[in-house]
Amino acid sequence: MNLHPDYLLNEVNEPSDIKDMSLDELKQLATEMRQLVLERDAKIGGHVGPNLGVMELTIAFHYVFDSPHDKVIWDVSHQSYAHKMLTGRKLGFLDPDHYEDITGFTSPEESAHDFFEIGHTSTSISLAVGMAQARDLMNHQSHNNVMAVIGDGSLSGGLAFEGLNNAAKLNSNLIILVNDNQMSIDENQGGLYKGLKELRDTNGESPNNIFKFMGLDYKYVADGNDLQTMIDTFKEIKDIDHPIVLHVNTLKGKGYEPAVEEKMKYHWRTPFELKTGEDKVKVSGESYSDAVLTELDKQIAEDKPVVAINAGIPGAFDLGKFKAKHPDRYYDVGIAEQDSITTAVAMAQAGARPVVFQNSTFLQRAYDQLIHDMALNDAPVVMIVRGGAISESSATHQGTFDISMISDLPNIEYLAPTNVEEMISMLRWAINQTDEPVVIRQPEKPLLHGKPTQSDYSTIKYDIAHRGSEVAIMAVGDFWKLGEKVRKELQDKLNIDATLINPKSVTGIDSDVLHHLAENHDVVVTLEDGVLSGGFGETIARYYGPKGMKVLNFGAPREFADNVPTEVLYEWYHLTPKQIVDDIEQVIHSL
Amino acid sequence: MNLHPDYLLNEVNEPSDIKDMSLDELKQLATEMRQLVLERDAKIGGHVGPNLGVMELTIAFHYVFDSPHDKVIWDVSHQSYAHKMLTGRKLGFLDPDHYEDITGFTSPEESAHDFFEIGHTSTSISLAVGMAQARDLMNHQSHNNVMAVIGDGSLSGGLAFEGLNNAAKLNSNLIILVNDNQMSIDENQGGLYKGLKELRDTNGESPNNIFKFMGLDYKYVADGNDLQTMIDTFKEIKDIDHPIVLHVNTLKGKGYEPAVEEKMKYHWRTPFELKTGEDKVKVSGESYSDAVLTELDKQIAEDKPVVAINAGIPGAFDLGKFKAKHPDRYYDVGIAEQDSITTAVAMAQAGARPVVFQNSTFLQRAYDQLIHDMALNDAPVVMIVRGGAISESSATHQGTFDISMISDLPNIEYLAPTNVEEMISMLRWAINQTDEPVVIRQPEKPLLHGKPTQSDYSTIKYDIAHRGSEVAIMAVGDFWKLGEKVRKELQDKLNIDATLINPKSVTGIDSDVLHHLAENHDVVVTLEDGVLSGGFGETIARYYGPKGMKVLNFGAPREFADNVPTEVLYEWYHLTPKQIVDDIEQVIHSL
Repeated sequence: MNLHPDYLLNEVNEPSDIKDMSLDELKQLATEMRQLVLERDAKIGGHVGPNLGVMELTIAFHYVFDSPHDKVIWDVSHQSYAHKMLTGRKLGFLDPDHYEDITGFTSPEESAHDFFEIGHTSTSISLAVGMAQARDLMNHQSHNNVMAVIGDGSLSGGLAFEGLNNAAKLNSNLIILVNDNQMSIDENQGGLYKGLKELRDTNGESPNNIFKFMGLDYKYVADGNDLQTMIDTFKEIKDIDHPIVLHVNTLKGKGYEPAVEEKMKYHWRTPFELKTGEDKVKVSGESYSDAVLTELDKQIAEDKPVVAINAGIPGAFDLGKFKAKHPDRYYDVGIAEQDSITTAVAMAQAGARPVVFQNSTFLQRAYDQLIHDMALNDAPVVMIVRGGAISESSATHQGTFDISMISDLPNIEYLAPTNVEEMISMLRWAINQTDEPVVIRQPEKPLLHGKPTQSDYSTIKYDIAHRGSEVAIMAVGDFWKLGEKVRKELQDKLNIDATLINPKSVTGIDSDVLHHLAENHDVVVTLEDGVLSGGFGETIARYYGPKGMKVLNFGAPREFADNVPTEVLYEWYHLTPKQIVDDIEQVIHSL
Repeated sequence: MNLHPDYLLNEVNEPSDIKDMSLDELKQLATEMRQLVLERDAKIGGHVGPNLGVMELTIAFHYVFDSPHDKVIWDVSHQSYAHKMLTGRKLGFLDPDHYEDITGFTSPEESAHDFFEIGHTSTSISLAVGMAQARDLMNHQSHNNVMAVIGDGSLSGGLAFEGLNNAAKLNSNLIILVNDNQMSIDENQGGLYKGLKELRDTNGESPNNIFKFMGLDYKYVADGNDLQTMIDTFKEIKDIDHPIVLHVNTLKGKGYEPAVEEKMKYHWRTPFELKTGEDKVKVSGESYSDAVLTELDKQIAEDKPVVAINAGIPGAFDLGKFKAKHPDRYYDVGIAEQDSITTAVAMAQAGARPVVFQNSTFLQRAYDQLIHDMALNDAPVVMIVRGGAISESSATHQGTFDISMISDLPNIEYLAPTNVEEMISMLRWAINQTDEPVVIRQPEKPLLHGKPTQSDYSTIKYDIAHRGSEVAIMAVGDFWKLGEKVRKELQDKLNIDATLINPKSVTGIDSDVLHHLAENHDVVVTLEDGVLSGGFGETIARYYGPKGMKVLNFGAPREFADNVPTEVLYEWYHLTPKQIVDDIEQVIHSL
C-alpha cells in the first residue's frame, strides 16, 4: 500500500513531470524523497547517507537535463534512489509491498534511464568517457550531455584516476560531478583529500588544482544541497563543448541528524528503528572477527611485528577495535585495493607480518597484485577473505569467484577453515611462518566450534572426520555442516556409511588420502560454497580423471544471481542435502 | 670472455667501490655502462632506451646512498641494468657468456640489492611505502632511505596514483623519483602529461602541482642526465624526514642516437645490429595481427562502428597501421588496463563495436573490470588476447593464467581459434553480434591455415576433425598441431586411431559431442597452452567426473617459470607427443 498518497511525488512518472514545478515544489519533492529513503532503508536496509546527500543535485539534474537523452552515470550507484524515484520507479519507495521490486543500484533492466549495473566504486568516469566517445563517433549531430557523478571517496581508487587522465583527451561534452561530502565509506584516506580540502577552503580558487593540472575545466559549487544553486549551475554548463569537473560540496546524510552525526554507521545500514536509530536485528554472541582480533592481540603481545591492513572497509571486520588498541599498526589505504596488496607485499618482504582484510568481491580489483606482487615474490602476506559464499546479495557484489581467483595462482596457500578454532590455528601458523602467502577464507555461516587437527599447515593433511566406505564427502569450509547433513541423509536414505573429509585447503592436495580413498570408495563428492568453474571440485575431478573414481562436484554454476534468497539459490544449484543425495544415488546406480 | 677488460667498471664489485671515484671516473663509468647496455641488448635483446636514460641517476644513487641499507625500488625494473652492473653483476654485461645469467628485471635471487621481482608498471610507490612503513614499525633507530624510481609513463596506471595518495600519509623518509622522459612505451596518453609538461616548462615552479596538491614535498631537476646535479640533489635530500617527490627530467635513449630518435622502437628490442640498428631476425610473412587489421578494415568499410582500443601497447598488435588509417577510431588509453575495459564496456553499451587488444599478463590488472563491468553488464565487447602460451618469458610476464582468469567468469565467451581463417571467422561473428562479450585467444605459434567449420559461434559445436575410437584428443587453439602429432604418435606407437577434436572455445561446452564420445571412447585427452588450474581440461574432467570416461589433462602446472626455454618447459610439463602418448598408454593399460 502506498504510504504517502498525498505526496507530490505521486505526480511524477517521468523526469519531464518536474520541469514545470516551482522551486518550492521541487524542495517539497526533496523533503518527501528524503523521508522515503529513510522509511525504505529502515524497513529493508540500504544506503542512507549517500542518498540523503544528493537529493538536490539529482532533482536539479532532471530539472535541467533531458534524461535519458542526456545521460547520468552514478558511481557505485548506491546514491541513485532519488534518480530512481524520478524515473518511473517511485512505487518502489512509496509502497513497502514494492520495496523489493527495485534494487539498490542502477539497473538497465529496470529503466531506460540506467545504463549499467554498478556496485563497485571508481568506474563512472571511464564509463562516461566511453559513452561520450561512442556518441562522438556515431552521432555527430547529437549533442547529448554525459555526466558522471562520483564521490570524493571513490576518487582514491586508481581506476578513477585513469578515467580522469583519459577524460582530458576528449574534445567534446563531458561533465564529471565530484560529489565531495568529505567521506568515503569510512574516513577518507590519503593526500588527495588535503588537496580537495584546500579547494573547498578557497572556494575553488586555489591555483593548485589536480583537475586543472590534468587539463580539465573546473567549477566549484560551495553548497550542493541548495537546489537553486544546483539548477543554475547545471543550466550554465549544459551542452558545454569540452570536459569539465564540477566540484560540488554536499553534506552526507543531509536531513537526518543521526546520519549526519554518524556518517560511517549510516553509509549503509541493515534495518533500523527510524526514531531511535537502533538496529532491528541485534547481532550478538561470538564472531569470527572477534576471534581473529583476539589472536592478533596475542601475537602482538608476543612481540610479533603484526600489522592490520584494509582498503576502506574496517567495519566489515570490526577493525575499529584494532585501530583503537594498536593505532601504529593499523593501515586503512582507503578505496585502493591494489595498493593494499602491493604495500602488504613490501611490508612482508621487509620483515613485518601484514594481515590484510579483504572482501572477496573487492579483492577482484587486486588480481594482478595477487599474481605479480604477492605470488611471484612468494611474499608471506597473511590475508583474511570474507564474502566467499553463495548468498542473497546484489549481483554487483557476488563474492563467489574467490576460489578460482586465488587458488589457481602459484605459491599461494588458500585455506578454508570449518570452525573458529581451526581458523585461529591457521591464522597463528600463517603469522608465524614466512615461507609463503597464506589466505584464509572466513566462514560466512553461523560460527561453529571444533578442534584443529594440525597446527602446521605447510603440508595439508586432509582430516577424515568419519571413516566410512562407498561414498566420500569432501566438505570445504563453510559447507562443513552441509557435508554432515549429506552424510546423515546418505545413511538414512541409502544406508550408506559415507566418509566425511575436511580438506582444509582449496589449493594443497593431500594425494595420500585421495589415493587411499580408492580402496573402498566408488564416489567422491565435493561441496564448496562458491562457483565451480576453476574451483576446488575441479581440482579433485582432474586428479581422479585418469583413475576409476567417480567424482561429483557441488557448488554454484558460472552465473550471476541478483538478490535471490540463499535458500532459493541452493534449490537452483542442487545444494540441498536431499538433492545432493539424489544425485549421488543416480551415480551409484550407474556403477 | 670479458670483452672489456680495460673498463673501469671491472674495479666495481660493490657500490662502495665507486664512492672514492672522481667525477670524471664516474662519467667514464656512465659511458662504459651505456656501451654495455647496447652490446648486450644488440646480442640478446632487452630494454634499451629506459636503461640509457638512467645512467647518471643510478650512479649518483649508489655514490650518495648506501645500498642495500638504503633501498631503491625500480618501477617495472626494466631500467635496472646500471644498478645491476654496480651491485656485483657486471659480468652479466661485460661477458657475453654470462649475459643470460642475469635477468632483465630486478631479482632478489640475484642480489641483496634487489628486493622484488617486478615486471609490470606502477607498483613501485606502493612497494616503497610498504618498506618505509615496515622500517618505521620495526626499526625506530634505523633511518635508512627508501626510494622508488618511477617513469612518467608508469604514472598513468591507477596503482601509482593509489600509492602516491597513501605515500602522503607517511611522516618519515620516502623519496619518489619521477623519471620524466616524456615517454611511455609508446607516446604518453592523457591529461596528466599536460600537467607534467607545465612543471617542466616552469622549472618546477608552477603553482599547479599534482604532487603538492596531495601534500607531498617536491623538487624539480631539469637535467637528470647531469651527474654532478644528481649527486648534489641526492646529497641534499638524503635522510629527509618526510616523503618527497623528486621530479627528474631525463632523456630516454641518451647516448645512442637511434634510441633517442626512435624512442618507441628502442624501448625494448629483439637482437639488432649495433651499427645499423637493423633487426637481426627479420619477421616476415603472414601474421595474425595483419589478418585482424584487414578484417577490421572490412568491417569499417561496411559501416560498422568498430573502434580499436589498447592500453599502451599498440606495437604488440601492429596497431600503428590502424591508427594511420582510422585515427578517429583508435584509442590508446596509456598504461591503464582497467580504464581500457571499462571504457570499452560503455562504448559497447552505447552501440559502438569496441575491439580491445590486450596482452594476457597485463589484462590481469583489469580482472574486476572483466567481472563487474564487462561480464555483469553482458557488454558485447570484443577482445583479442595475446600471450596466453607456455613459452620462454620472464616470470613477471607469464601469460598462462588467462584461461582461468577469463573462462571461469559468467557471460563471457572465450574462443580459441586453431588457425587464421577460424580466428577471422570468429572475429567477424563477434563484431556482428551484440549478445555477449567475446574474447579471442590469438595463437602464438606460427600461423596456420584452415577452414572455419561454423560461422555463428553463439552455440559452440566442437569440430571432429577426425573420427576414430578409443582415445579422443581435444586440442585447444595453439595446441592444434600438438594434437595432430599426438594422434599420429598414437597411431604409430599404439596402433590407435584416435579422434581429434577442435573445441574452439574454452567456455562453451558441446555436451552433445561429449556425450556421444562415450559410445566408442575410453579416454579423453585435453591439450591446452596454459595453466591447468581453472583451465579447460578441468571443465572436461568435471563434466566426465560422474561418468565412466577417463580424462587426462595436459597443460602447465600452477607455477612460475623464469626465462626457461619453451622446449625445456614442454619436457618438464609432459607436453611432448611422446610423453603424452606414454601417459595415455598407462591409462589404457589400467583399464
